[in-house]
Amino acid sequence: MAHGISAKLASILSADISEVERKRFPDNEMYLRVKEDLSGQDVIVIGNTKNDSDIIEYLLLLNAVREEDPKSLTAIIPYFGYARQHMKYHDGEPISSKVFTRAIGEYADRIISVELHNDQTVKYSKVPFNNIKILNPIYEHFKNKDIDYIISPDDGGYDRARNLADKLHVEAYYINKKRIDANTVQMNLPDINYKNKNVLLVDDIISTGGTIIRASQELKESGINQINVCAIHGVFAGNSDKKISGIVNNLVVTDTIESKYSKITTAGEIASALLNKIRA
Amino acid sequence: MAHGISAKLASILSADISEVERKRFPDNEMYLRVKEDLSGQDVIVIGNTKNDSDIIEYLLLLNAVREEDPKSLTAIIPYFGYARQHMKYHDGEPISSKVFTRAIGEYADRIISVELHNDQTVKYSKVPFNNIKILNPIYEHFKNKDIDYIISPDDGGYDRARNLADKLHVEAYYINKKRIDANTVQMNLPDINYKNKNVLLVDDIISTGGTIIRASQELKESGINQINVCAIHGVFAGNSDKKISGIVNNLVVTDTIESKYSKITTAGEIASALLNKIRA
Repeated sequence: MAHGISAKLASILSADISEVERKRFPDNEMYLRVKEDLSGQDVIVIGNTKNDSDIIEYLLLLNAVREEDPKSLTAIIPYFGYARQHMKYHDGEPISSKVFTRAIGEYADRIISVELHNDQTVKYSKVPFNNIKILNPIYEHFKNKDIDYIISPDDGGYDRARNLADKLHVEAYYINKKRIDANTVQMNLPDINYKNKNVLLVDDIISTGGTIIRASQELKESGINQINVCAIHGVFAGNSDKKISGIVNNLVVTDTIESKYSKITTAGEIASALLNKIRA
Repeated sequence: MAHGISAKLASILSADISEVERKRFPDNEMYLRVKEDLSGQDVIVIGNTKNDSDIIEYLLLLNAVREEDPKSLTAIIPYFGYARQHMKYHDGEPISSKVFTRAIGEYADRIISVELHNDQTVKYSKVPFNNIKILNPIYEHFKNKDIDYIISPDDGGYDRARNLADKLHVEAYYINKKRIDANTVQMNLPDINYKNKNVLLVDDIISTGGTIIRASQELKESGINQINVCAIHGVFAGNSDKKISGIVNNLVVTDTIESKYSKITTAGEIASALLNKIRA
């Protein structure tokens, strides 16, 4: 549960934060109870579909609120887990992001999420679903820092890198990856002059951080001055936050998943999307 | 996942068991893949809604099968977890069994479960939902054992005890419980002659086993010959299986949740319900 965003959103929207009682029964079933009377209220339920227990808790919470007969119920999911399983890559696989989108839409009148890995997930929803892109808060964070190049770890993220580069008036590049065999991926850094330069690697999700770690290790030997890394969602599987911050000069993520690297907030963008929808 | 029941059901129904590939991604998201081609097939998906990861896996599996376009999809849930949260006891609580019933009904054409704690859960389903009662397999297990009395741990389970007692031609009783304060429940054993007798304590679910343990400790001092304990669902929270089997002479549960105490199978009853429905 994203407490940092909740507090910031409540402040922007002048909304109250309802207390939720949580416990486990002896058999490990989850118990929760919303402590405020929410009948007739506009209610936002914030939660991430990041791990099994988070998803169960989020569905129970949405149901608890819905049972109270609110005026409206908006599901805000800063980090939508399972969004990389937005299609079947092989027969017999589930479409995981569809499963959770549908389950949430059973209770929510609308869904707001941040930078889904793929926009296809939005199309599985029967209720309005906003997928917010985060550009300005990242620009604001880096505008006074001395960045020479922006690099995307793969061609799929090049648009994000280029949009940010345009605002910062610098050049954008991407790392060219070529699969050699099942275990080997060849990685070609952009062929530019790194000597005494400051680069910013930008990605949507840092999970294991494999590409960023390899790229940073190579860049270190190029005479580079500073490596900055920025991602929307800091999943940081397998302590990749420690591995990355041990190599690069600066690691920053947003607050969609709270960590000590969450130096950029998405609350303002979420509030704008919410208010636009309420107005519309 | 109830492998014991799956194998027995497949045997009764002459059905094949599809292999399912399962793994976790580095960020702990679940991956699964059904290995058989299920299009146009009558498919049964067996799983318990017992803990968070089981529920997530079960929903992903139901979706994976549904995406393959089967002829029919039956959800068999031998132990339906969260069925004790079948209503709001206080404002602000979720109706947990409704949440999972609805989520499963999103994919399944029909649902079969065994001895739900409360029949209310069935009413939340939009698809046909059979709640099977298990009596005959328990009777068969105990008919040649020398049982003198059957005792239910509370008045709510008295019907179950009496139905079994009628078949075994013995008397049924229940333990009278009276709440004294928040922390104290007074327990009154039936006022009958226990000397050299064999009793059978019958319940639907053994979770912490609190009442059964207390009752067994008291019965031990009554000159009783043998204490037998039988339940449909052996949840066994907090090692209660070890605590109970350390006190009583004989602990038996069904295979809705597999354990070494699963000496009674429900597969025959589930197959009957399934075939009746297919016929009907």
